[in-house]
Order: sequence, then structure tokens, then C-alpha cells
Amino acid sequence: MSKIADPKLRHEGERNFLWAKAHMGALTTLAAKHSKGKPLAGVRVGVCLHVTKETSVLVDVLVGAGAEVKLAGANPLSTQDDIAAFLATKAEVWAWRGQSPEEYAWAIDQVLRVKPGQLIDDGADLHVAAHLSRTKGIAGGSEETTTGVMRLKALESEGKLAYPVVAVNNAQTKFLFDNKFGTGQSTFDGILRATALLIAGMKVVVVGYGWAGKGVSMRARGMGARVTVVEVDPVKAVEAHLDGFEVTNIHEAARDGQLFITATGQKGVVPYDAITRMKEGAILANAGHFDVEIDVKTLLSRAKSVREVRPHVDEVVVPGGKKVYLVGKGRIANLVAAEGHPPEVMQMSFANQFMAALRIRKEHGKMEKKVYGVSAAEEQEVARAALESMGVSIGEQTAEQKAYAKSWEV
Amino acid sequence: MSKIADPKLRHEGERNFLWAKAHMGALTTLAAKHSKGKPLAGVRVGVCLHVTKETSVLVDVLVGAGAEVKLAGANPLSTQDDIAAFLATKAEVWAWRGQSPEEYAWAIDQVLRVKPGQLIDDGADLHVAAHLSRTKGIAGGSEETTTGVMRLKALESEGKLAYPVVAVNNAQTKFLFDNKFGTGQSTFDGILRATALLIAGMKVVVVGYGWAGKGVSMRARGMGARVTVVEVDPVKAVEAHLDGFEVTNIHEAARDGQLFITATGQKGVVPYDAITRMKEGAILANAGHFDVEIDVKTLLSRAKSVREVRPHVDEVVVPGGKKVYLVGKGRIANLVAAEGHPPEVMQMSFANQFMAALRIRKEHGKMEKKVYGVSAAEEQEVARAALESMGVSIGEQTAEQKAYAKSWEV
Amino acid sequence: MSKIADPKLRHEGERNFLWAKAHMGALTTLAAKHSKGKPLAGVRVGVCLHVTKETSVLVDVLVGAGAEVKLAGANPLSTQDDIAAFLATKAEVWAWRGQSPEEYAWAIDQVLRVKPGQLIDDGADLHVAAHLSRTKGIAGGSEETTTGVMRLKALESEGKLAYPVVAVNNAQTKFLFDNKFGTGQSTFDGILRATALLIAGMKVVVVGYGWAGKGVSMRARGMGARVTVVEVDPVKAVEAHLDGFEVTNIHEAARDGQLFITATGQKGVVPYDAITRMKEGAILANAGHFDVEIDVKTLLSRAKSVREVRPHVDEVVVPGGKKVYLVGKGRIANLVAAEGHPPEVMQMSFANQFMAALRIRKEHGKMEKKVYGVSAAEEQEVARAALESMGVSIGEQTAEQKAYAKSWEV
Amino acid sequence: MSKIADPKLRHEGERNFLWAKAHMGALTTLAAKHSKGKPLAGVRVGVCLHVTKETSVLVDVLVGAGAEVKLAGANPLSTQDDIAAFLATKAEVWAWRGQSPEEYAWAIDQVLRVKPGQLIDDGADLHVAAHLSRTKGIAGGSEETTTGVMRLKALESEGKLAYPVVAVNNAQTKFLFDNKFGTGQSTFDGILRATALLIAGMKVVVVGYGWAGKGVSMRARGMGARVTVVEVDPVKAVEAHLDGFEVTNIHEAARDGQLFITATGQKGVVPYDAITRMKEGAILANAGHFDVEIDVKTLLSRAKSVREVRPHVDEVVVPGGKKVYLVGKGRIANLVAAEGHPPEVMQMSFANQFMAALRIRKEHGKMEKKVYGVSAAEEQEVARAALESMGVSIGEQTAEQKAYAKSWEV
Repeated sequence: MSKIADPKLRHEGERNFLWAKAHMGALTTLAAKHSKGKPLAGVRVGVCLHVTKETSVLVDVLVGAGAEVKLAGANPLSTQDDIAAFLATKAEVWAWRGQSPEEYAWAIDQVLRVKPGQLIDDGADLHVAAHLSRTKGIAGGSEETTTGVMRLKALESEGKLAYPVVAVNNAQTKFLFDNKFGTGQSTFDGILRATALLIAGMKVVVVGYGWAGKGVSMRARGMGARVTVVEVDPVKAVEAHLDGFEVTNIHEAARDGQLFITATGQKGVVPYDAITRMKEGAILANAGHFDVEIDVKTLLSRAKSVREVRPHVDEVVVPGGKKVYLVGKGRIANLVAAEGHPPEVMQMSFANQFMAALRIRKEHGKMEKKVYGVSAAEEQEVARAALESMGVSIGEQTAEQKAYAKSWEV
Repeated sequence: MSKIADPKLRHEGERNFLWAKAHMGALTTLAAKHSKGKPLAGVRVGVCLHVTKETSVLVDVLVGAGAEVKLAGANPLSTQDDIAAFLATKAEVWAWRGQSPEEYAWAIDQVLRVKPGQLIDDGADLHVAAHLSRTKGIAGGSEETTTGVMRLKALESEGKLAYPVVAVNNAQTKFLFDNKFGTGQSTFDGILRATALLIAGMKVVVVGYGWAGKGVSMRARGMGARVTVVEVDPVKAVEAHLDGFEVTNIHEAARDGQLFITATGQKGVVPYDAITRMKEGAILANAGHFDVEIDVKTLLSRAKSVREVRPHVDEVVVPGGKKVYLVGKGRIANLVAAEGHPPEVMQMSFANQFMAALRIRKEHGKMEKKVYGVSAAEEQEVARAALESMGVSIGEQTAEQKAYAKSWEV
Repeated sequence: MSKIADPKLRHEGERNFLWAKAHMGALTTLAAKHSKGKPLAGVRVGVCLHVTKETSVLVDVLVGAGAEVKLAGANPLSTQDDIAAFLATKAEVWAWRGQSPEEYAWAIDQVLRVKPGQLIDDGADLHVAAHLSRTKGIAGGSEETTTGVMRLKALESEGKLAYPVVAVNNAQTKFLFDNKFGTGQSTFDGILRATALLIAGMKVVVVGYGWAGKGVSMRARGMGARVTVVEVDPVKAVEAHLDGFEVTNIHEAARDGQLFITATGQKGVVPYDAITRMKEGAILANAGHFDVEIDVKTLLSRAKSVREVRPHVDEVVVPGGKKVYLVGKGRIANLVAAEGHPPEVMQMSFANQFMAALRIRKEHGKMEKKVYGVSAAEEQEVARAALESMGVSIGEQTAEQKAYAKSWEV
Repeated sequence: MSKIADPKLRHEGERNFLWAKAHMGALTTLAAKHSKGKPLAGVRVGVCLHVTKETSVLVDVLVGAGAEVKLAGANPLSTQDDIAAFLATKAEVWAWRGQSPEEYAWAIDQVLRVKPGQLIDDGADLHVAAHLSRTKGIAGGSEETTTGVMRLKALESEGKLAYPVVAVNNAQTKFLFDNKFGTGQSTFDGILRATALLIAGMKVVVVGYGWAGKGVSMRARGMGARVTVVEVDPVKAVEAHLDGFEVTNIHEAARDGQLFITATGQKGVVPYDAITRMKEGAILANAGHFDVEIDVKTLLSRAKSVREVRPHVDEVVVPGGKKVYLVGKGRIANLVAAEGHPPEVMQMSFANQFMAALRIRKEHGKMEKKVYGVSAAEEQEVARAALESMGVSIGEQTAEQKAYAKSWEV
């Protein structure tokens, strides 16, 4: 039986579902095409995703293809309660905003207890929980995030991966768009809802120049910020430098940054000693999956005081009396303080998720216990559906050009 | 006696006041410098401004300089009720969100009934109401917006202006920053809170290429939109063209726009027949002062149906069945759906307002019944205070350079 | 009799004239409309402009309107010798690239000796020379640049201006486009032809944030540079800051800049002691009218050695052994190292020049010895011609909207 | 014996060599570190590269490592004759600007006749010529371009590749920077030198959205153009769309483009029938390796007339009388009309070339007849050297972070 915050929110949830659905044509078109004959009939899909309006469209599509869906949220603070209420009319749901860590683990456990045959995950908490409890009966799964794929690869390299996983995150039609454009826009959406400050002229430090960091940096600049990038990978550092950003290390950047945004998938990339160097009023926000990128634990344990000054903004007074401000308790800001990625981006990510579920259903017998990528053909199909939804019409290579691409003589 | 939504919101209002105050150093610094000896003691200031956290800082500053403040909101939908509750502890306030047109007029009338000696206005509704009822005892006033200054100039050119007015809007330290950077960012803040859609790739049509329109266009591009500008002034049209935007008329633009944002101060710049040409799903938002820029009246009167699909988003089905979406009922989107301009911008606008109040107090006897600008010296003082608040340190011209600027021989 | 470098270059000059003419439709259209009846018949126009392909189109238009043209170059290093050769077939020309200061003065003197009735100037050297020798018979003139207008205003304020001057520079259709877009693009065109270095990632310091400085900063960013702006005017400094640039003073900027570009109209804005603080390899270029913005005189007088390392790039070894590089000897880089502003920009500037010549011809009797602006009506006409040449079609205000703009009641 | 245009140009060539060398610290630092003991002693390296100042630094470095260099140009129109003259003092050179196709082939043949032991190539003409004549004695080689790697992959997939080749192009430290930033800037450098027109407001059509196309699009926008991208790959098309560009097919784009730039590596991407649809005055330029991207052959064969109107700009009158303009005869515009990529970019590309030469020298015995990538370790080394040359200092992962990246449990 579902456990959600308030079933009465289901009507508001349905309105948001419909709004998202209207802007996710790539997913609904692909689903319509592939759902004839209910290809997922009889499949119980365990899902651990942020419970947002976009996720409700994926769940609807999975159910439409015949699947039975069991849903937990992917973060204690990211669930939209209206969506959870709406989804509880279509699936079993254990998700509400403001779960304790124990409640969060309990919800994931509920998903595993009902013995899902496939898993769809965001961050790999569900996959990891399965590997720590039971993986029997699981034909395969997929994973949405950089962080999650990193963990699954670690499992794979230790020889412990128990079923095939499709790394949806590694699809170009996912990371080029979701990680970059989704995170770029929605992180600032969250930060503005939380702080309502002017980005123009602000010194913004972006930690990490992967796809998410690129997106955040690009949007920071697009809003008029002066942007400094912190990177430890030299190739990415050169890239950030030639993209016109200041590039340095976190300790140097800490000295004059006003807003720090982490996007690395790593822990401690804003360490406590960097925070102590910051200017009065510095703001800390995280765009990465887990709340470990800023060293919140040390910050809070040493704080002289902590109090909420706006919804999703805590003022932390550090020893010595300086004040810094923490957005969303260091959890992923776009989901905590806003609504996560916009539907136009999620239509591609979730089209890949849907295709991955179909593939595991059909091919899991032939698949190894490995982390798989999305095929080029699937990518093309998703991209073509996205173009159609965006009203973009492109041409094609001629036969002569195809031949030219394979020739080597003049 | 104040009339507000809920006095219990005063603590939340105070938190927001403090947050804004911490980011409005230019205003508080100037105020501290000029408030010794309570220069506004004995002055009753009638204020008609959007009741936001930034306005609360101006009211606090006016009160600190000795003034007695009487406050109405500048728009039926723009009042932040927590701020109104907080300000009711410092001033008499007649403002709540969701006023009817009659209530809105009643609140302005309250301000005039208590016989203010000065007026501070945003949009000139208070000035116009005074001119239509009584202006006796009003030593002078100021005006915040392009729209309001246009109306006051009309009064002046008809010989009907009853007291001197400082056109704060015309200060460079106001329009270059508030109109451009404030409107640019906060309009999208409002649109994103309302719609949560992806701006990247979207075809955004900005109607008007004045300072507000420039700001909106710049931010639209900064978020990845494809931007078309609609202008009727040929000089501004060339400017938009060379700034790299598509430039056309509203009827042409209506055909492929996805999001339309008006910023003109004019009525009917998105006329009903343009709306009927738009694509399914088009979104209409207004960044201008009054709700006349989009022809909402005709749109709603001919609609087959209207229903709210998200807070601040109404779906309107036009004859024929096409759906378009109206943000904030065509009222100023940044204030209806978000929190208005950020404090870093308002510190300059309101520093000019504060200086204008001092000037009228001191010089009204020598001033004519005219619309005055802000002096270059005041601008410089405001700008220097802003630079200080932003941590920017600049140099100065040498004596030799000053002489060179006045020389004509080689 | 003309004095030019090489008459045989006239065919190459004609090709460049035709290329420019094909891209200056706004000027040629206006000229065609206003030249019926040869309105400048009998007028001898003394012209001191950079002798570029765009200038050749203006001269052709003046001649087409009946004028007799006498031409000197506006800078010793800016003349395109092929254009000079071509123009010598239509006008008397004293201009060649690489004049000595004496030759430059001589050429200007030649223009005055033939007793022009009107003057068209760029930088005011011709106007000043007239005021220092004879102004008799001069009905009026015009001026193209910020620098020149500053000098003429100085003359006016000393009560010494001898005839009316139209400050073409102050037309929006001039400074918004020529100063900003023209200087922005062509300065980098010059710097790239001279240095062939990568702008992306480079730390570029722009001195001055007037229209030219804004254009240079915008293009520097557009090519991937990290841009620091040096300003002494606090309002412009706030503007640069909110535009997302670092803002500081020249001494601070000197420490880590790699390319310095001056655009102020002032002298000594890159003083010698700032140069001595620069990093090895720093490059100095000037976008302003005169070669006084960088303190070239002191730099060269104290240099240990100076040698050309590429055309238009001199390596200067300063005491202590550090090397800095000077582009175009500190003269206006776009004209020395490239071809000046592109024709699409000059069509507007020169349309204003042409209209000014007509106005002086018709109205000089009624004009005072003052610096005049361009009228709004002329601006509109120029802008409309420019839009037409650019293929842009805009709408118009309705009668109802015109009335609304003049109303003050609701 | 060398065959070059003019040995007297060697001094000018040396100046340009020194200028480039001063800006290629990453290459010279790596070379210094790896050249002890003359690791390339006894190796005769056949080189087919654009003969630019940057190439002269690579040749100098190869010679400094002990190699004997034999050099041909990589394009009939791209050789800088001064550089060829200078390099003839260090190597045997067969290169001059303006070769006929026969002379171009002859020069490549000269390189092969002297029996090189390694080949360094740009475009694969040298590799292909070797495979068509003799590959005996060639231990391996490398390739600089996307086009060349495509041809070598074709050879490999047909089982005909005769020796191991390092695809330098596929190094991130090559394609992310050289293809994108190098092509982006230098293509416009070439186009501006050739045309001197205003890019702001211009409708620029970029054909291809690979790395080169991305760079060209980015710079076009950075200069104020309105940019349309033509792509046939749906994933890249979505990318261009979300990057805020108009995306369409070539026939649609042909209708309103003003400047067309090809960057695909494909033939006929601007086909003749698209050219016939273009507007009067359209300009065609190519940024790709070969002159086949625009269908120049058909264009010229059907033209009513062709004449040069500026250096590197031919006016082509097509049947019907419309004029279009072809830059650099459809050959790679940055090398024909400007100086190719800037040294700061080439330092990375050529550092990879140098490392590839060392690797083949050391490891060719163990390498298969395959196309190899550059190793991650080499990339890191090149990137670190580049960062040092750019004055950028970054941090490193802690041991704890390295462990975290490999963990999967919470």
C-alpha cells in the first residue's frame, strides 16, 4: 500500500502531469510506437526516481506498456507530494518530501520487498540496496546518473554486478542534454527561488567542468555572472580556460567567490577549510546527486549557529562569526528548491529509460552482467523523436555522401 | 489603521527584510550618511510601490530619516503579504495580494486621505489619483517607472502637473540597471516558477527593445533561447538587429513564437489577431507595468474556456480550439509569479528615491511644477555607493586628463 | 593637384569602392532620394576622413550631389593607398599611408588653402586647423568622432567656435553602431591581422567603457577572452560590472592582463608605470582616435630596444629586460592594421554626414555658431534606410497607441 | 633539394617562427623534456602539413630531437612562403603558395621518394600517396585531421592499412581545442581579411555541427551573427537546437543565408541547386580540409562569369544573373586568407604529434597495422603542459576522493 504525504493533492498532481506530458512528445511518441501489444505486460518494475511531474509521465508510459510500477523517491527532499499523490492512483508509491534517512531507506526497501523484475534507478541507491540484500529475480535494470553509473562500474569491476544494467546516463541523448541543459537551467531556477538575488555581476564558482558543470557555467555566464571554474582534470581545465572562464583550485577560488555550485559527483570538493576562507555572505549550493560535495557535515558540526533565513536557505555562523548560506542543506538544489529538470530535457532521458526497459525485457537472456551503453540506433531514434517534438526538420546524407565517408582515395 | 492579509506573517516578513537589507548596501550606506538629524522629520510620505522585501528596506530607511510612511501596493497582484505584515509594524499599510480593482483604488485613496506631503510612486497611479482628487499640501514627489514618467510628462505638457516630480526612472543608475538587469532576470524567474519549461531552444519573442526589452532579450539568449524582437522604433530595431536578434513585426513573429514577453509600456502590442495566429501551446507573459500590453481583455472575452493549469498559468482555449497559456493574467510577471527585482538592483533605484525625497524636502520651494531628472552628482554618488557595495574599486582621472578633456588644440 | 602614393592602384581602389558601395545601401538610397537637382552644386567640401573604401562611397555620393571634394586623410597611418588613387579621379586628394607628422599637417593645410565652404571631419584636426588659420567662408561643418566633438565643445564653451557644426557622432544612428559594432569588430580584425594569436582564454583589459569600449569588450568576450574593464566613471563602472566583466583600475589590471586595448579618447590611460608592471609578452593596442591613450612617447623614450617582429607589431624591451608588444605604434589599430569599420556600419555614419552637409547647405543662415545634434527625424530616416538595406521589416504604432502614449488617466 | 618560392623570405619567416614559438610553450616544454638523448636520431620524418609559423615550430622540435625532416605542404594554397624559406634552412622543403594540383602531387611524391621512416600528415594525402606507391620502410605515422582519420579508418576497415597510425585528431587535447577554438577563430579571421564585412546582424549558415562547426557557430554568434546550423545527424541537430541555433536543412537555409560556412568533411554539402536558391550577394566559404564541401566544380562550370573582386574573393555570376561570392576558391579559408590556427592551439595539436612520433619510434615493433588513439596519460601530460603555458594552476584529487570514485556502497 502506498505511503505518501496527502492523497488529496492528486488533482494538482494530475494537472502537473498533464503539463509535463504536453511537453514530452519525444517520450510519448516513442512509447505509442513501441507499446502496441503491451511489451512490458507482466513485468514488475521497481523505480527509484525523483518524484517529479516528468517522472509521472515515464510511470504513465511504463504502465501503458503493461508494466506494474513500484516507486520510491531518489532523494529525501526531492519528492513533489502532489505528483506522489497522483502516481499512487497508477502505481504503488512510497515517497514524500522530507523523509528521514531511515524513512528513505525504508521506502527503497519496500520496492525490493515486492520483488521487482527490473529496476530503474537514479543514483544507484536502489541497485546498491538490491546488491546488499537480494538480487534474485532481477533480470536487469538501468541507471540515470553519472554518480550511479560510477557506482555500478565499481560493482562491475569488482565482479559483483548481479544483472545487466543499461547506463542511460552514458547516452549522448541523455548526458548532452539532461546533464548540461537540464542542470544548467534548473540549478539556477532553484537558487533564484531560494535566494532571489541578482546573478549579474556576481562571482560564481562552479566546481566541476563535466557536463553538469559546463551547463551551470554556461547559464551563470548567460545571466551575467563572473564565473570561475574549479577542476582537477587537466583536459577539462584547459577546456574551461579556453571557454573563457577563470580556472583555479578551490582554495584560491574560495577567496573571492560569492556563490559556489558543486557539480562533480565527488565528495568534499568544497572542503571545510575552503569554507572558512570565504567572504561574509558566501552562498553554497550543490547540483550533484549526493549531499557530500560540500562538506556539510563538518560545516554544521562546527557551526556556532544555524537558522533558516528563507525557505531552503540556512544561515550558518562559523567560528569567528562569519556567516555563510547553505541552499537546500547541500542537497541537489534544482530538486529541493525548484522542480528539477524541465520536461523537454527529461523526454529524452526517459525515452532512453523506456527503451532500456524494453531491451532488458527482450534481450536480458542474451546480456551479460555488465554495464551496457545505449546503442547508436536507439540514440538516433530518440534524437529524431526529440527533433520532431521540437519542430525541427533536418536533411539526410545522399548515397554519394555515404560512399564518400567510407572512401580513402581522392 | 493598516489593512493587510495576515499580521502573523510579520516574522517571515522580517526575515525577508533582513535578507534584502543585507544585499542593499548602497541604499543603507547613503541613508546612514544623509539621515543624521532626521532630515525627513515631520514629513508624511505617501508611498505606492510594489510591497516587496526591497521596498521594506526603503520604508525602513525613510522612517529612519524621520519620515512617517503611508503605504499602498502598486499592483493588485504584486504584494508579498509577509512584507506587508512586517511593514505594518513601521508604517500604515493598505496592501494585500489579490485585491480587486476597487480595493486597489480604495487603498490608494487611503494614502491620499491622510494628506501626505510627498509622494513616491511606481506607475503614477498615486500621482494620477492625487491629480484627480486633491493635490493640496503635496510639496512634490517622485516616480519609479517608464510608464509613470510618460503619464507625468503628459500631465506636464497639458499644464496640469500640480507639484514638482523627480523622474527617478530617468536616472542612469535606475534605468540602466533596474529596467535592464532587474527585469531581465526577474521576468524569467517569474516565468520559470510559473511554467517550469526549458528556455534553451525555445523561440522567444520579446516585444519592445527599450531597456526592459533589452534585458529580457539578453537573458533569453543567455538561457539558450532563439530570440525574435518586435519593435516599431527604427533606431531600436537596427540596434536589435545588430545585437544579433531576428527583428520583425508582431504578426510575423506570432507565427512561430513559443513564448511572448511584452516590455513596451504600450497597450495592445500583442493584439488579439496576433494571438489567433499563434501555434498551439504558445505562452504569453508581460514584463511591463500595466496589464494592457497583451490584449487580455479581448482574449478572455472570446475564449471558449479558461482554466488554471498551474499557479499563475491559465490555459485559454480560443475559438477554433487552439490553446494558449497566459502567465499571471497578463500582469507584470516578475512580481506576480516571483519576487520582483533583486535587491542589488533595487538598492540603486531606491537610493535615487531616497535622494529625491531629501531633495524635495529641501528644495521644493525653489522647484517648478515640472518633471525633473536626477542630477549627475547624485548619480555619481549612487553609483559610487553601489560600487562599494559590490566590492569594486576604480581609479580616477588625473588633473592632466581633466584638462585634456577640455582642450581643443593638439 | 592630388598627392597620393601610386595612381596605378586606382583599379584596385575601384574594386574596393564597388565592394563597399554594394554594402552601403542606406547611404546610396538616401543619396539618390536627396540628390535630385544637385543640392550641393557649387559647394566645395573640405574632407578630412580616413581614406577607406567606405569613405570613397561618401565622396562619390557628395560628388553625385554636386559637391566639389577636397580630401585629406584623418591619420598618418590609416590611408588605403588604392582608395586614395581611385578618389583622385573624382576629387583632389592629399593622402598616402605613412605620412610624417609634417606631411599630415601639410595635407590638412592643402584642404584649407583651397577655401572650402563646408568641412567634414574625423577627429577635428581640420576644424582645429581652420580655427588656427582661417575660418572665413566656411558655412559650417560636421564631425564624426567622440574625440572631435569633445574638442569642438571645448571651442564652443570658450566662445571661439566660428561656424555651426553638426555633431554626427552624437547621432544614435552613429554612436550606437559605428562606435560600438564598428570598433568592436574591426579592432579585433586589426589585432588578429597583426598578431595572429588566440583570443580564447586570453586576459583582455579594455580601458574605457563608452560605446567603443562596450563594443570591444563585447567582441572580446564573444571570442572567448576573459575581460577586465578599466573605468573611472562610476556609472559606467557599475554597468561593466553588471555586464559580467571584472572592473578595476589600470594599475591592478596591469598585473595580469595579456592584451590591453584603449578606447577612451583620453591621454595616458595606460601610463608608463602601468606598462612596467605588466607581464612578459603583454600586447598594447589602441582603438581610440589619437595615439595618446597608451603613453607611447615615454615607453619608446625609455626602451632598451625596439624592433618590428611582425607587420604592425613592435617588440619593446623595457628597462629590466621585459618585452611588451605595441600594435600599430599605438595608433588606431583597426585602421592601421586592418581596413577600419565595415561598410554596413559606415553607411549609417556617412548617411548622417551626408544629411548634415545638406542641412548646412540649406540652413546655415539660420544656424548659430554652436555644436548641433542630428534631429530625431533625420535619425529615423537613416534608421529606416538602414533597416531596408538589412532586409528588416518592422511594424508601426496604431493611432490608438499613439494616443495612449500621450495619456495620463487610466 | 628544396623547392620554395623565395629563399630571401627566410628572415621574415624566422621572425614569424620566433613569434609562434613564444606562444607554444606546451610544445617546447614537452620537447625539451623528451628530447634529451636525441630520441629521433636517425629517423627521417616525412611531413605533409600546412606550412605555417606553427608548423615551423614543430619542425624545429623534431629536428631538435634528432630527426631529419622532409616537408611538403598540405594544401596548394596554404603555404606561407616566408616560413617555407625559413624551414629550408632546417629541412628539405617542397612547398610554395599557389601550386597547381600536379605540383602539389609532385611535392608529396618528393617526400616519399626520399624514403621516410615515419609520416606526419594533415588530411592523409601523404598516407594515401604512400599506400598507392610504396609503404615499405615506413614504421608508422600520425594524422592531424578528422578528414584524414576518416580515410585511414576506411583503409583499415578494408584491411589495407600498411603501418600503425596514431590518430592525433582523436585526442581530446587536439579536437576539443584545435578543431573548435582554432577553426572558430581563424575561419572568421580569414573571412574578415577577405571580405571586411560586418558580421553583426548577418545571417550566417554553418553547415556541420561537429567540433569545427561548433567552433564556427560559437564565434559567429560571438560576433553578433544570427546563426543557422545545417546538420544531418539527429543528435548533433538536437545539440545545435538547444544551443540556441536555428536548425534546418541546406535547401531551407539557402533561402535567407548571407554567409555560408562549411565544416563537415563531406562533399557537396552546399550543392549547386542550393546555391541557385541563395540571395544576391551570398558569400560562400569553407572551413573543412578539402575543397569539395561547396560544389565549386559545378558552380564554376555553369557560371556566366567569374572575376576576383578582392584578394581571395571571387564574384560568380550564375545563370539568371545573380551574384554570389566565393572565398578562397572554396579551399580552407583560414589558411588561404589568413594564417591558419593560432599558436596557442597548435601547441597542443603538435605536442600530440611530437609524442606520437616518439611513440612510433619506440613502440612500432609492438604496434599493429591499426589506427591508434592517443593514451589518456599522454593527453594528461599535454594538457598539463598547456595549462602551465597558459598560467593556469589547478588542484588535485585527494586520496579519499580517489577511493570514493571507486566505491559503490554509501
